[in-house]
Amino acid sequence: MFEDSGYKGSVKRILEGAKVQIGDIIRIVKDGHVYEGNLIPRAEFGDEKCVVIKLKSGYNIGVRVDGKTKIFKIKEGEKPAFIPPPPPETKPELKRVAIISTGGTIASRVDYRTGGVRPALTASDLYSVVPELSEIASVEAEILFSILSENMTPERWSVIAETVARKIKSGVSGVVVPHGTDTMAYTAAALSFALQNLPVPVILVGSQRSSDRPSSDAALNLIGAVRAAVDAPFAEVAVAMHETTSDQSIVIHRGTKVRKCHTSARYAFRSINASPLAKVENGEVIMLTDEYRRRGESELVLKKNFEDRVALIKFYPGFNPQIIDFLVDEGYRGIVLEGTGLGHVGAYCFKAVKRAIDNGLMVAMTSQCLWGRVNMNVYDTGRDLIKMGVLPLEDMLPETALVKMMWVLGQTSDPEEAKALLLRNLAYEFSPRTLP
Amino acid sequence: MFEDSGYKGSVKRILEGAKVQIGDIIRIVKDGHVYEGNLIPRAEFGDEKCVVIKLKSGYNIGVRVDGKTKIFKIKEGEKPAFIPPPPPETKPELKRVAIISTGGTIASRVDYRTGGVRPALTASDLYSVVPELSEIASVEAEILFSILSENMTPERWSVIAETVARKIKSGVSGVVVPHGTDTMAYTAAALSFALQNLPVPVILVGSQRSSDRPSSDAALNLIGAVRAAVDAPFAEVAVAMHETTSDQSIVIHRGTKVRKCHTSARYAFRSINASPLAKVENGEVIMLTDEYRRRGESELVLKKNFEDRVALIKFYPGFNPQIIDFLVDEGYRGIVLEGTGLGHVGAYCFKAVKRAIDNGLMVAMTSQCLWGRVNMNVYDTGRDLIKMGVLPLEDMLPETALVKMMWVLGQTSDPEEAKALLLRNLAYEFSPRTLP
Repeated sequence: MFEDSGYKGSVKRILEGAKVQIGDIIRIVKDGHVYEGNLIPRAEFGDEKCVVIKLKSGYNIGVRVDGKTKIFKIKEGEKPAFIPPPPPETKPELKRVAIISTGGTIASRVDYRTGGVRPALTASDLYSVVPELSEIASVEAEILFSILSENMTPERWSVIAETVARKIKSGVSGVVVPHGTDTMAYTAAALSFALQNLPVPVILVGSQRSSDRPSSDAALNLIGAVRAAVDAPFAEVAVAMHETTSDQSIVIHRGTKVRKCHTSARYAFRSINASPLAKVENGEVIMLTDEYRRRGESELVLKKNFEDRVALIKFYPGFNPQIIDFLVDEGYRGIVLEGTGLGHVGAYCFKAVKRAIDNGLMVAMTSQCLWGRVNMNVYDTGRDLIKMGVLPLEDMLPETALVKMMWVLGQTSDPEEAKALLLRNLAYEFSPRTLP
Repeated sequence: MFEDSGYKGSVKRILEGAKVQIGDIIRIVKDGHVYEGNLIPRAEFGDEKCVVIKLKSGYNIGVRVDGKTKIFKIKEGEKPAFIPPPPPETKPELKRVAIISTGGTIASRVDYRTGGVRPALTASDLYSVVPELSEIASVEAEILFSILSENMTPERWSVIAETVARKIKSGVSGVVVPHGTDTMAYTAAALSFALQNLPVPVILVGSQRSSDRPSSDAALNLIGAVRAAVDAPFAEVAVAMHETTSDQSIVIHRGTKVRKCHTSARYAFRSINASPLAKVENGEVIMLTDEYRRRGESELVLKKNFEDRVALIKFYPGFNPQIIDFLVDEGYRGIVLEGTGLGHVGAYCFKAVKRAIDNGLMVAMTSQCLWGRVNMNVYDTGRDLIKMGVLPLEDMLPETALVKMMWVLGQTSDPEEAKALLLRNLAYEFSPRTLP
């Protein structure tokens, strides 16, 4: 048990000495203070010297233990340490929101008896964990996948798109898609292209800290996402996450312009080369831009196919252009280059790029700088690439460009049509050119 | 001529109608105002409707032309429109700084007569373009390469390292390396590992706008770099660039923690997961951290070999693990993964990763988030990768990790020694762990 508990070193030895297990009710005596509660697994980023217990109140606290701290077992954990309260009444007079869960930290709950993780997104689970939701919307929750988001695939994007479309056609006011944060931005881009002519908002939401940790962002992110799904005036695919380290506001990023920019912080997501769409503060949706697709009565068009023989290739000094040759030989249909600066790759790669294009592959250029805009007209070498047929993708994120090319080549096999589609601004993936 | 001038559309037609060429002295009459000067090529990000002339004073101005603007040729350009003033006297009593130029925007100057670009980094050129340098140091300038930095290679890193080492051994107080900005951060990392036991600062410097543009950052960046080379108390490899859009301060980033984060802005470079080392303001070097290697009398150790059979692989949904198999079959010695979030790749890639390690490749993990720290102990899947032998690289940038692995495998063929070297903090490439 203690292998999985996250405790180690001296703290682990103290707990083992007290013969306590995760889930047991324990008493900690330190400096004359007494703490009692269920022993829970150590938070992965928490203080290594802390023992974490869940108090009767439901709150978790960490107690820093030292040589003089005493720990006793009060009662063995026989059943789940935390029994969710019964869900509140749903209010059918509220607008309907669909929650389609795909997995990730936001959709998981630790069972303190076993230490195991289980999905917690039935509607009744949700209401019991985040009872505020029942005041905002009439929630229809379903579990579509329970996967870690690094296992998300283009085929699964299609299934999500299909499920969201079905829900929208059933008349909900908005859709919320809980998702692991690792690849949430890729999925947001995928849905931005697959769900055309959207009548309502589709909000992806994740959390960086699980709902069983005191610093969790799960509940607030979910409340913000549901609020936006019900009330926001936009009808786009977006991502809702903490704006800063504080719990003041949830920021809503456009699905084609967002990127995970921190491995662990709660404000990990950022809009790149664009303003966020909106934020949710004190229960209100505040728009941060005037340029957006309006919520309305439009007929959703589902275009769910993605071609997975498309690669994202990051260039660097010493990059081997044989990787490009390999993709061509494997029957790839497209390559997005993540070039340097304004959109460059070493001149020694030109031959491989030209061979790819001569073999019918679509090749496009983005920048590993992430911020700013590709401009291949400044240097001869950029112009050479354009002459070969490399398509400059302006200020589009490399990840969005990859997803869009997968989508474009899933829609058509006609090269001219594919090119026109790739360069057309479909979901604000291109920002208007601004002067420096 | 006009193909290369940058002018297009209606402006190009007006210039062609007036039969003027780049370098000619022209007169522009607009709204009763008269402007006279040498016609110079259009700045790549400038207003498309502007004609740019260099006034007798040496300043460039852009004049927006419309249907009513008149342009006349006054005199054909026969010789360079801009004749550099004679260089000021050098002051042998000042400390010696070596400038070793490798190319890029900072090292180029447009010849207004031909529109061609030529390197401008002989000491005398430098003093005439940036006369302030003669007050700061006794400069010894040489042109090592004149390349666009996307054509930089690991072999060229070795040549730069060797040249810098030679100069340091000759007793200079610091070295400045002008470099194209595209791959400057990669070269900075390479020199950080190749030049061990540094006694003096080595400052890479670039510019985002060429010295012939009114908004150029070239002169100030160079002045800041030379100032740091002479005066800074640190002995590390660093990058000097504009801190903000203003000309107030030049910020100096540590070579292992810096990244180009904008395609065109002058403040394109940022320190990631670390404070910048220092800044230069009003001619003073101000340290921004207390953790740095001190300038001193140490004996430089040159370790200049890089193994180029090392790849940086960015993971994304739909990534094809056959790319990893291909690298193994091609005899690669190492792979740096740019995983998602805390350091993940899809479970379907594990087989290929394991095969790589079984075949003796060194495999390490970084995060495409860029900010934050890899932590592969949070999820089972991360622990599985660690068990296979994947080395988590904490908060190291993917680009720095690539360069470091190339360098490590250039130093040793012993796997245990290589692993120890990769995980040892040699040039502040790992920041100390901070609590969230």
